[in-house]
Amino acid sequence: MIDILIREIEKKQNPTVVGLDTNFDYLPDAMRAGVQDLKGAADAIVLFNQKLVDAVADVVPAVKVQIAYYEMYGVEGLRAFAETCRYAKGKGLIVMADAKRNDIGATAECYAKAYLGETAVGERVFAAFDSDFLTVNGYLGSDGIKPFLGWMQRRSKGIFVLVKTSNPSSGELQDLKLENGKTVYEYMGALVEEWGEGSIGKYGYSDVGAVVGATHPVQAEILRREMPHTFFLIPGYGAQGGTAADLKVCFDKNGRGGIVNSSRGILCAYRQEKYTGMPFDVAARQACVDMKDDLNRAING
Amino acid sequence: MIDILIREIEKKQNPTVVGLDTNFDYLPDAMRAGVQDLKGAADAIVLFNQKLVDAVADVVPAVKVQIAYYEMYGVEGLRAFAETCRYAKGKGLIVMADAKRNDIGATAECYAKAYLGETAVGERVFAAFDSDFLTVNGYLGSDGIKPFLGWMQRRSKGIFVLVKTSNPSSGELQDLKLENGKTVYEYMGALVEEWGEGSIGKYGYSDVGAVVGATHPVQAEILRREMPHTFFLIPGYGAQGGTAADLKVCFDKNGRGGIVNSSRGILCAYRQEKYTGMPFDVAARQACVDMKDDLNRAING
Repeated sequence: MIDILIREIEKKQNPTVVGLDTNFDYLPDAMRAGVQDLKGAADAIVLFNQKLVDAVADVVPAVKVQIAYYEMYGVEGLRAFAETCRYAKGKGLIVMADAKRNDIGATAECYAKAYLGETAVGERVFAAFDSDFLTVNGYLGSDGIKPFLGWMQRRSKGIFVLVKTSNPSSGELQDLKLENGKTVYEYMGALVEEWGEGSIGKYGYSDVGAVVGATHPVQAEILRREMPHTFFLIPGYGAQGGTAADLKVCFDKNGRGGIVNSSRGILCAYRQEKYTGMPFDVAARQACVDMKDDLNRAING
Repeated sequence: MIDILIREIEKKQNPTVVGLDTNFDYLPDAMRAGVQDLKGAADAIVLFNQKLVDAVADVVPAVKVQIAYYEMYGVEGLRAFAETCRYAKGKGLIVMADAKRNDIGATAECYAKAYLGETAVGERVFAAFDSDFLTVNGYLGSDGIKPFLGWMQRRSKGIFVLVKTSNPSSGELQDLKLENGKTVYEYMGALVEEWGEGSIGKYGYSDVGAVVGATHPVQAEILRREMPHTFFLIPGYGAQGGTAADLKVCFDKNGRGGIVNSSRGILCAYRQEKYTGMPFDVAARQACVDMKDDLNRAING
């Protein structure tokens, strides 16, 4: 799967993934008017996402759908999540389910089936929330990750494991120094490289990627060096404070090695002064183009 | 919330939580016959769970609903999850959503709303998957946990943070030694004690609990000593290999301090030799009674 993602990034010359963290409150007033229940909110979110996907599908290679924003609208929200993933896939985009799932082996197997694999009922099988990539949390170690690797291989999928997250307090645990002088995030990074060994593609990167925040360039630089075969999913650009200059260190000498997420910066672009007067989808498209230029300048500059 | 949980444990003299990790394949043949799609599977699971809840409601204080088993059946599965939680609550049981959610602050806020809090749509608010407790993963540090604490306080809820999980590879990351001689799981334990400081109840335990596996008694004993105000949710009994003797160390001198989960041992009791011939719900009830006796003997013995 990682080869397809890299190919799409190169084709569109854009290492941007649009984060569909679609809070109902982000929608334009007209789309929110009169909506008073979860079903109405979910329907409006789907419509917003569809228009947004239509507007950006030829500019970006992928969307990342943050499931937390859908879970808060309950069962209807999950339906909106499924419809959004399906729609984006239908428009040729690579779909990343950002769910940070984690559990012991037998239970991780269920999550793996839900997002990357298939669930059997009687004689038939179903791909419940079929995605191309899933984010996972590795706190439970290898046997919590293996079920994802299994389905990843069987159905040509990928995962991104949390290594160094973009939030301010990520260092509390992740930056702790171990007795061998390395940090917890470096140790997690080494595990990720190991988990990816069997799936290295033609660009030298494996189907087991890592989440590495744009907001921590010092750690990102260390990880890029220590994880030569690991592709990075890079959150934290824009609203969270990470700049294109900060995340340059995530990329290799060929300008490959990562994809940068922006969510609010694109979803809510229409509320920014520089896009004033544009419909939300037009503003989102322009924000993607601007982001592309900003990233390419930094990465290749 | 922890005070209510402890009160219910004492009332029923049973520190057992029934894990509703209801795989469709666990159902008796007759309940599976003819089912060929996700909706059918979800309906059958709800029916199974309802009968099981009816059978055990006067014997155990709580159920733990493992959401991974529902997510694999897609949107219909999530509906089954919601219906199961609602039904168990209606029967007077405390409901724990085992979802191990985690993310950066703004996104964790969405998860907190989904399981412990409320989501606003227009003028109205909805509790999407209303639960009493939620399991969470603390790899992202304090700002990924604070949103849960906020809703916990506002709506009298509780959380359990993963500290030392029950799976065989939990040590890979969690047992790593830090440069100060402590382990990662002890460090996580110290954070949990800190997060719980504001919510210590009348039994001396806070609303911020910890997941500590029955399969690792050495680490559990250390954690019990270092986390005097933290109540433990203890998986790993039975099918995973943990015994009542192993988990005695999780309890304090008053026989309090933890609740032990069993899932397959109860859901699939009807398949065990010693419960042969019993309907699944009768077998499940008997398994709860047997587990209660086994635990009480070990804890108070």
